[in-house]
Order: sequence, then C-alpha cells, then structure tokens
Amino acid sequence: MTRRLSVPEEDCPVALASAAIGDRWTLLVLRELFFGAHRFDQLVEGTGATPQMLSSRLKALEAGAIVERVAYSERPLRYDYRLTGRGRDLFPILYALRNWGERHCRIDAPDLAIHYTHRACGTDVGLESVCPGCGEALAYGSIKGVASDGRELKRSLSA
Amino acid sequence: MTRRLSVPEEDCPVALASAAIGDRWTLLVLRELFFGAHRFDQLVEGTGATPQMLSSRLKALEAGAIVERVAYSERPLRYDYRLTGRGRDLFPILYALRNWGERHCRIDAPDLAIHYTHRACGTDVGLESVCPGCGEALAYGSIKGVASDGRELKRSLSA
Repeated sequence: MTRRLSVPEEDCPVALASAAIGDRWTLLVLRELFFGAHRFDQLVEGTGATPQMLSSRLKALEAGAIVERVAYSERPLRYDYRLTGRGRDLFPILYALRNWGERHCRIDAPDLAIHYTHRACGTDVGLESVCPGCGEALAYGSIKGVASDGRELKRSLSA
Repeated sequence: MTRRLSVPEEDCPVALASAAIGDRWTLLVLRELFFGAHRFDQLVEGTGATPQMLSSRLKALEAGAIVERVAYSERPLRYDYRLTGRGRDLFPILYALRNWGERHCRIDAPDLAIHYTHRACGTDVGLESVCPGCGEALAYGSIKGVASDGRELKRSLSA
C-alpha cells in the first residue's frame, strides 16, 4: 500500500484540524465556551485545568483565531474569551464527541447526561445529527439542552 | 454563573470522549485506520509518529476497546490493528474534523484535498453532513473519496 499521493500531510484537513484542537484540555475549554462560560476563572472552574494549563490553551486558540479576547472592563483592564465564527464552526466536532461519549462511555447510565431538543419543531433529537422529527440538519443554536428534571440548562452546548 | 449541576465532570460525555481520543497523534492514528491502514509500520509511515509514540496510542486505544489487535501471521506471530464497532462509530468526529479543516485551515487551497461522493446517489457531498443530493445523513461506508484527478482513493476516510 502506498501513501495516498494526492494529500501531503501538511495539506491534510484532518491533520490541520487535529493540530488546532487535538488536545483533551483544549476540547474541554471549547466545551465550556460553547456552554457560555467566558471568563478565565469560569474556564478554570469548568475544566478543572490549572491556570497555567488554561492559559497555554487559550493562547493557542487565540493564535488560531478560534477564540478572541474582548475587554469587558477598562479600569482595571479585563478581558473575557469568546468563540469567533471559526470557533463556532467547531460545533459539529463537539456535538459528535458528545454523541459518541453518550453512546459508548456512559453505557450503564440510566439516561442521557443532557437531552437536546430541536428548537424549530420541539423534537428530542437523541443522539442524531439530523432532527428525527423534521429532518433538518442540527446546527449550533438550533438545539437547546434540557436536564432530566425538565429545567432548561444555561450551559448546554447550544446557543 | 454556577457550575451546571446535573452533569458532574466524570459523567460528562464530552469529557469522556475527549479523554479517549483527545490527542493529536491519536486522531492521526484513527485517520489512518479509517483510511484502511492496519499494520504498525503503515501507521508509523502514515502518521509520522515515532514507534514509541504510536505504540502508546495503540495501547490506549486497545484499552478503550476502540482498536483491536488481530493476528495475521502465526509464525512469527504478527498482529495488525482494526477499528472495533465502537471505533468505527468515531467516524462522525473524524468527518467533522475534516470538514472544519477543509473550511478553515485550507482557505487558500484551490480545491478540497479530497472530494467525497455519496455512493447511493453519486452527489459530491462537499462539506455537508447530510447529502445535498438526496438528504440522507452521511455515514461511514456511504461515501467514497475521489482525488482531484478523478482516481478513486484507496485510503479516503470511507469504507
């Protein structure tokens, strides 16, 4: 078998995407940002990373134009962290991680950790990437997370 | 903002999935396995990892029941590496990485690295997760990769 000739490694989209976000802590930072956490201390709390670990991941994400710093206070000067458009486009990756984790890492759990409902038609989407109710492809902002007891979650991998 | 109460970290599907595969080299190993590489030396060649790095990733993937070793020779005893069902279910994650990498990391490239065609209807699926021709959700085995010059690739993140 020969190495596929048409795609050199430096031009492979999977390699490029893996270099940008292929790191466990980076994925947890992205999860928290999708959940609506923006401040450094919230990200520390949400991920369990040390400030040093978090800082290095945020720097790399900022260098990759996935995250941007936005000043929320002038005196003292303070920033929080927001997903850019390029960052929000990572949603299908995070959602696919969630689906696989629910299906294969929580097999003894009595219920899904979070149920997602398609806003447009109200269907519980289960672990699908296309709404089983209306057939629409699911995207960031089109689903909302609901805890087992019915409360809508503030932070639920959905806009 | 409070930590979301309903999902402790040890039960979060994104955290569990990230712990299983959230590593750049692991993602490249998975890419090669989806491309149809099975032998240790092919995986070294395809990923650019050192034998030691590859070995540690394969051990973790085997421990996670994502990869299984299958004997292909008895004398001498030799194994190759195959995705389990649990491993093949990672396809949507790899495909989402590819889509994001194509869209955001190859913006100056004149063409997609690999074009995928939906086997059932022949449509070029572009960067969609649902076939733009017939509306079917795309899955492992339902698409085939074609290089720019029209040759069907042997190794193309598709069965």
